[in-house]
Amino acid sequence: MGANDMWANKTRSLLAKENVKMLNLIGSPGAGKTALLEQSVKKLSRKISFAVLEGDIETKNDAERLARLNCRVSQLLTGGGCHLEAKMINHAVRDFPLRHLDLVVVENVGNLICPAEFDIGEHAKVVVLSVTEGEDKPLKYPTIFREAKAIVISKIDLLPHVPFKLKRCLEFIRNINPYAPVFKVSVMTGKGIKEWIDWLVSYAGCSKNEKK
Amino acid sequence: MGANDMWANKTRSLLAKENVKMLNLIGSPGAGKTALLEQSVKKLSRKISFAVLEGDIETKNDAERLARLNCRVSQLLTGGGCHLEAKMINHAVRDFPLRHLDLVVVENVGNLICPAEFDIGEHAKVVVLSVTEGEDKPLKYPTIFREAKAIVISKIDLLPHVPFKLKRCLEFIRNINPYAPVFKVSVMTGKGIKEWIDWLVSYAGCSKNEKK
Repeated sequence: MGANDMWANKTRSLLAKENVKMLNLIGSPGAGKTALLEQSVKKLSRKISFAVLEGDIETKNDAERLARLNCRVSQLLTGGGCHLEAKMINHAVRDFPLRHLDLVVVENVGNLICPAEFDIGEHAKVVVLSVTEGEDKPLKYPTIFREAKAIVISKIDLLPHVPFKLKRCLEFIRNINPYAPVFKVSVMTGKGIKEWIDWLVSYAGCSKNEKK
Repeated sequence: MGANDMWANKTRSLLAKENVKMLNLIGSPGAGKTALLEQSVKKLSRKISFAVLEGDIETKNDAERLARLNCRVSQLLTGGGCHLEAKMINHAVRDFPLRHLDLVVVENVGNLICPAEFDIGEHAKVVVLSVTEGEDKPLKYPTIFREAKAIVISKIDLLPHVPFKLKRCLEFIRNINPYAPVFKVSVMTGKGIKEWIDWLVSYAGCSKNEKK
């Protein structure tokens, strides 16, 4: 972890110099991380300048989905690795025109466990949990829910069809993470997206116009 | 990996001596692994003798769910670890009355990546993919889909509500794994459970009565 932390700190220094914030988006396979970004791109690009780093084990599908929306995106492939490492992030971040960005969002490999343990130079981790996964996940994977600076409960349009107890889930979350905002969103209906975008913009800390 | 493989081979020898088969059930958090076992316990216990090893990072919830159904179950906690290791499985398996069992099912930690890389002494890996995760997962997590001796597509009752293309998913699976049986199941409606149980019984290779 020594070398990883050194690279993570290098990245944070680099980002600080250019006044760019970086988020590390973590969730299970299929939690809806890419779909959330797809929904965010258009609304977000009216307010701030941002780029996405797509982390995957194999395939460039996710980066291609975002590139189709004219999102500035780079694909990182771990070649089997279960999480992104700080060194690969550092190299990718340096290729972005940081001077013109407010925010970098890293979509980590689909995995609720290992990515929670590795600092990649982000300012905050954000966890995405879909309602189809069950309300017990904050109890069973506490590390990421404890560390997250924001929590997204996704696919809430499916609530009528799944045995997910939203109130209990929120209680489980509050027991281990009393303060992080929780966004209940559906990319199908658009519900909760505005609140999520507002948080991203406020987290980025400055608008496009302020920076230029 | 040397020590892990040694323990895995020890376990396989032990199981072979008692004519017991062992399955390693792998899937994302919330894919429905425990729910599938809950649905299987009653029907399976009429046909074969079996035990379950529940792998989790934290909480004993899953083992308790199965114990309520009078299933013989042991809970293994990894304390943060992202997969089960062969040594802990070996110790747990030795505590089972193997002489009276036909099958051990290990429910691995909710993670589509790391458990695929570790031999725990099983005879076959089985992967569970829920339709809410998206049909692209076999492409994005090819190792486990390639290695699986059986594939369960779960939560098919949700198909009308999610943008999951079943036919494409089956094509993706067949490209990397031409022969493994694919079970399309719903624990809510019971669909596909009979075929899954029949496969488990046939995989176990002998019925309760034959053994005794």
